[in-house]
Amino acid sequence: MKVLVTGANGFIGQHAVAALSERGFDVYAATRADADLLAPGAAEALIERVAPTHLLHLAWYAKPGAFWAASENLAWVQATVGLYRAFAAAGGQRAVLAGTCAEYDWSDGVCVEQRTALRPSTLYGTCKQAVGSALTAYGAQHGLSTAHGRVFFLYGPGEPREKLVASVLGALKEGRRAPVTHGRQVRDFLHVADVAGAFAALVASDVDGPVNIGSGEGVQLRDLLTLAEERAGTSGLIGYGERQAPEGEPPVIVADVTRLRDEVGFTPRFTLTAGLDDALAGMT
Amino acid sequence: MKVLVTGANGFIGQHAVAALSERGFDVYAATRADADLLAPGAAEALIERVAPTHLLHLAWYAKPGAFWAASENLAWVQATVGLYRAFAAAGGQRAVLAGTCAEYDWSDGVCVEQRTALRPSTLYGTCKQAVGSALTAYGAQHGLSTAHGRVFFLYGPGEPREKLVASVLGALKEGRRAPVTHGRQVRDFLHVADVAGAFAALVASDVDGPVNIGSGEGVQLRDLLTLAEERAGTSGLIGYGERQAPEGEPPVIVADVTRLRDEVGFTPRFTLTAGLDDALAGMT
Repeated sequence: MKVLVTGANGFIGQHAVAALSERGFDVYAATRADADLLAPGAAEALIERVAPTHLLHLAWYAKPGAFWAASENLAWVQATVGLYRAFAAAGGQRAVLAGTCAEYDWSDGVCVEQRTALRPSTLYGTCKQAVGSALTAYGAQHGLSTAHGRVFFLYGPGEPREKLVASVLGALKEGRRAPVTHGRQVRDFLHVADVAGAFAALVASDVDGPVNIGSGEGVQLRDLLTLAEERAGTSGLIGYGERQAPEGEPPVIVADVTRLRDEVGFTPRFTLTAGLDDALAGMT
Repeated sequence: MKVLVTGANGFIGQHAVAALSERGFDVYAATRADADLLAPGAAEALIERVAPTHLLHLAWYAKPGAFWAASENLAWVQATVGLYRAFAAAGGQRAVLAGTCAEYDWSDGVCVEQRTALRPSTLYGTCKQAVGSALTAYGAQHGLSTAHGRVFFLYGPGEPREKLVASVLGALKEGRRAPVTHGRQVRDFLHVADVAGAFAALVASDVDGPVNIGSGEGVQLRDLLTLAEERAGTSGLIGYGERQAPEGEPPVIVADVTRLRDEVGFTPRFTLTAGLDDALAGMT
């Protein structure tokens, strides 16, 4: 069993390579330096060179903030379909793609794979939904086992400083004030090592179609940030309301993880407390 | 205004070229012989050579029966995104893509663009929805005016004989029996010249996003076939129930054409009677 991991040096990718190795996979960790998947012919050449039986495709445009609307999203739709087609043509057995909770209609609150409407409000969500639906439909029709892991919110060591949890933990660790929004939002956070572990379990399983990758538990940002201060040993540094929440921001976004837990058989290792400790310890 | 039409020698394409010329467009009619859009680099070369301001992309895999599940659907997702990206990169102003009523949740009956859920049950519908949503979202985000015309049921001279209306008209014209299903299905039929006229009007407009291309009127197949016998001058040749209807076939699929009529400003020229006469006259 040889698995090709794209985006292998990314935030999730580094942990996914470790998790797949632990599971006994022969892992080929592809990075942009190794193969620029946006270049014509690169995907075909990579597949021919590596000859993987399994594919975990994590690579995508991910610049914090910019990724929601960037034109690169369309380039990655084209590249992802091309990579998958090359994998299928070479006799690949099992493909797993990285999707996002931003594919869902967020007004629903708790997102269930086969029930919650898909109504992405961003170009990123639309493009992830487009490849996820097209490739899982292709897989079902043509016998190529294909799953689409929809990632919710994540955090952990190595997270870019522009992201919420990393920016707050960084500030706390340095004794600086951390300006945030009202903090009443309820979100589903999972430590990056568990996100990667869930992807590895998904690759090793034969579960097809969309699978939520989250903790299954909603936490109010205020509770998460209070816990962060407790673990960092600080107090009063969180500046609630010092940032404006985006208009129309949904109050609740939580994953239903029935498929991940019962069908894939994955349960997270990190509690939120242990996860925050790990993220704090890993801050540079 | 120079419009590049792909699939220009197809069933809709031939009429679309004529309709766009009538509207004063300088039309470049691209066929597979001219540029195989599935070949790497072909789309970029075609866009560079033609330098269109407008794009009407009709080309897709269309073999009757086979197109619903064919692996070529995925190749066309990749090719369509590549063509659109080349058009965008070259400064194109207006793009129109061909979608399908098979993108909708057919259990709804009357399909309304922004309201009816998208729940395609076929690979073809899934792939058309994927490119339609990704490219119209890109267009909205990056200022490239983009529409996606969702075609309902069509008929007319030149329709492949494997299709329902052409197969029945061919049989009637030759005095043969035409075996059909129960005939209680209600569908939305539009003459191919009107489908093409609607696409031409859509290209000339600045209406963005999905637009249904249909008559807006549901007709029961029995009524259409009775009219066909009347116009063909035959009687009793329709064999109801001599074909099995596919399991779970939806009873009603009709387009809401408010956008096409009020925003695009298009109304069909052919009545069903005139359209059937035209189709009969054009049978070879």
